[in-house]
Amino acid sequence: MIQRPRGTRDFTPEEMGARRYYESMMRSVAVSHGFREVQTPIFEHTELFTTKSGPGIVEEMYAFKDKGDREICLRPELTASVIRFFVNDLTNYPRPLKMFYFGQCFRYERPQAGRYREFFQFGAEIIGSATPEMDAEMIGLAAAILERTGLKDYKIRVGHIGVLKGMLAQAGVSGDTALPILQKLDKKMYEEAEPLMKAAGMSADSIEKIIATTKVTGPLSVLDTYGGEAGEYLKEVFAILAQFGFRNVEVDLGVVRGLAYYTGIVFEVDAPKLGAEKQICGGGSYSLSELFGGEKVFSTGFAIGFDRTLLAIEKEGQTAPKLLVDAYVIPVNDKTRMKAYEVAALLRRNGISCDLDIMRRNMGKNFKYADAIGARRTIIVGEKELESGCVNVRDMSSGEQKMVPIESLVQHLKG
Amino acid sequence: MIQRPRGTRDFTPEEMGARRYYESMMRSVAVSHGFREVQTPIFEHTELFTTKSGPGIVEEMYAFKDKGDREICLRPELTASVIRFFVNDLTNYPRPLKMFYFGQCFRYERPQAGRYREFFQFGAEIIGSATPEMDAEMIGLAAAILERTGLKDYKIRVGHIGVLKGMLAQAGVSGDTALPILQKLDKKMYEEAEPLMKAAGMSADSIEKIIATTKVTGPLSVLDTYGGEAGEYLKEVFAILAQFGFRNVEVDLGVVRGLAYYTGIVFEVDAPKLGAEKQICGGGSYSLSELFGGEKVFSTGFAIGFDRTLLAIEKEGQTAPKLLVDAYVIPVNDKTRMKAYEVAALLRRNGISCDLDIMRRNMGKNFKYADAIGARRTIIVGEKELESGCVNVRDMSSGEQKMVPIESLVQHLKG
Repeated sequence: MIQRPRGTRDFTPEEMGARRYYESMMRSVAVSHGFREVQTPIFEHTELFTTKSGPGIVEEMYAFKDKGDREICLRPELTASVIRFFVNDLTNYPRPLKMFYFGQCFRYERPQAGRYREFFQFGAEIIGSATPEMDAEMIGLAAAILERTGLKDYKIRVGHIGVLKGMLAQAGVSGDTALPILQKLDKKMYEEAEPLMKAAGMSADSIEKIIATTKVTGPLSVLDTYGGEAGEYLKEVFAILAQFGFRNVEVDLGVVRGLAYYTGIVFEVDAPKLGAEKQICGGGSYSLSELFGGEKVFSTGFAIGFDRTLLAIEKEGQTAPKLLVDAYVIPVNDKTRMKAYEVAALLRRNGISCDLDIMRRNMGKNFKYADAIGARRTIIVGEKELESGCVNVRDMSSGEQKMVPIESLVQHLKG
Repeated sequence: MIQRPRGTRDFTPEEMGARRYYESMMRSVAVSHGFREVQTPIFEHTELFTTKSGPGIVEEMYAFKDKGDREICLRPELTASVIRFFVNDLTNYPRPLKMFYFGQCFRYERPQAGRYREFFQFGAEIIGSATPEMDAEMIGLAAAILERTGLKDYKIRVGHIGVLKGMLAQAGVSGDTALPILQKLDKKMYEEAEPLMKAAGMSADSIEKIIATTKVTGPLSVLDTYGGEAGEYLKEVFAILAQFGFRNVEVDLGVVRGLAYYTGIVFEVDAPKLGAEKQICGGGSYSLSELFGGEKVFSTGFAIGFDRTLLAIEKEGQTAPKLLVDAYVIPVNDKTRMKAYEVAALLRRNGISCDLDIMRRNMGKNFKYADAIGARRTIIVGEKELESGCVNVRDMSSGEQKMVPIESLVQHLKG
């Protein structure tokens, strides 16, 4: 037997039913917020991601040379692709340009629980100008999507990269020296951050203060002590989120998302039930367009880990509604077979989901199959009933059976 | 600027609107026929496709080695993946097992009009037993999908690989000798087929007769002269398709789809308006499961070229309905800004698609933007109106404006 590649998945009809249900739910929330979908290729020039994240990322990607000797790779995420698309083709669109996407991403690493080599992201980006509304709209979309899925246990933590950056700058540390410090602080690796801060000439007092700041979490009021200008901005974003009706949001000044291109607000969402791999969403405002040769624009976005979010929903015991056929048509014998096909076609043309015997089975086997696929009703096409233009409709859960004229069958099934 | 890889496409919001519209239409037709969706990975072990189609296919694929030195490739089509999935995991599902799929496929060749290196297929497979019903159900699904898209100018041509195979066998030619002959006949390359047939010992008379047969097209009645057992089977399939209400189907004994794994019915759909690249669907019954180490099963399927089908629909002047926001909320000044956010959230929570000013623009610019995104209405949140709990609703096409109490706004917009 030929196996699927390691770290990838096949999805059964039941799994796909649930996945498409939540995917289209997310899509419809995004559309109802005025976002519109874009799509980019599964593979890109490797340069796109090394430009964004540095050469180290090649190690974590499916990168290869095509037959024209071009370095290409399976996309590890979609923000870079969407911004490349913006720079190439969408700069003339009215701003704010609100986009969303859904699709497969790939990473080359040891597969483990909740981490696959092929995984799915649902994300959104806005390109516009730096207002708290823009960030609130972004966080608000993520919040609205998660609210709509019915997920209960999750927490939205919002920080601002400017808080720590400002403190470092005040201590005389900025730019290339600040970045590795921020990265360590983001991961709460204080033992590694401290020597870097010392080497940059920071006093023990400022080091202590900055480490304390990364631990600041809680309601908006925590910003009364910390924050400065970035804190004021955060307060405005929170005020708008409150108007939107989202209260499941807290401050976390330790969220830094240690990547050079983040510029302001940063946020993450955790679903604690998932354990170690609990982060289901991450985002913030960033600056990438000019890295890819475009104009400098304000942009903000997020990506939801689709697989983990589904896992979290599942762990809370929620299930998606099943797609079952409304009717399964059974001819009682070969004489009524052709008429049965006509009846099935009639139902299908009228929007009733319908299956029928295509294996020429006997009644018993047909009922067993109808049961196995979860058909709501069987339509039995018998010789006698046909004489009066009727078929027998049997409700599969109650067992109730009824003669129905074919001419009113559609109405009967829809009613 | 970093470009997207050659032969791939980015899709704008307008294009994605149309693509998702037709994709979900196809999905819903498949579901209404009792098919259920499956999904397999974007990349597979290269062996899967060389087992199916021979080593030559590697030349036409994005094939590469991963870091574990495994030969993998971007899938060139989905039937092999679906049957691999069946063999690995789905053999215990009730039969007939009716599946469909939608997704990206990849081929490495010179990009040209209507042929992309990344393209999309919508397809379906049934695993069951060899009845004419099974093939009719398969062709019928393709026909129902195309009918639902509104495409007018297309033709479904159905043949049976058994007709030519039977004639070759009668002339003493079968198995490995017959296959290359069938492949040439499929492509109507008679000058190359003839010497092969001669070398296989066929008489001039049988050669002439077989070439004439590949040119037989037309209504069912053409089978009165040609066909034998395979012809009888074809007649049954056509009779069922007629019961299903599909009459846009004709016989074409030249459809052979020269691949070793086809076993019986073969069919193709053309949209003549597309010119040279006019084929939008191809399928037939085939035998692959045992090639992949599974049991021998009867299977039949098809794949619709999603991109070409959309192109054909477009060429006929059809357009998908646009997804526009129902309402765009504008605060007249900073004092009503927070209230405007609340109004937007109210609409969104009630399923009304809604956008709002997140750039702090003046009224004029806001109206211009609302117009650019095609908003149906603007909701103007003014100080005076708010005093009496109202907002102004303006119809963007008629210009009509009305004061509406916020408490009945949802009802007003939905009514």
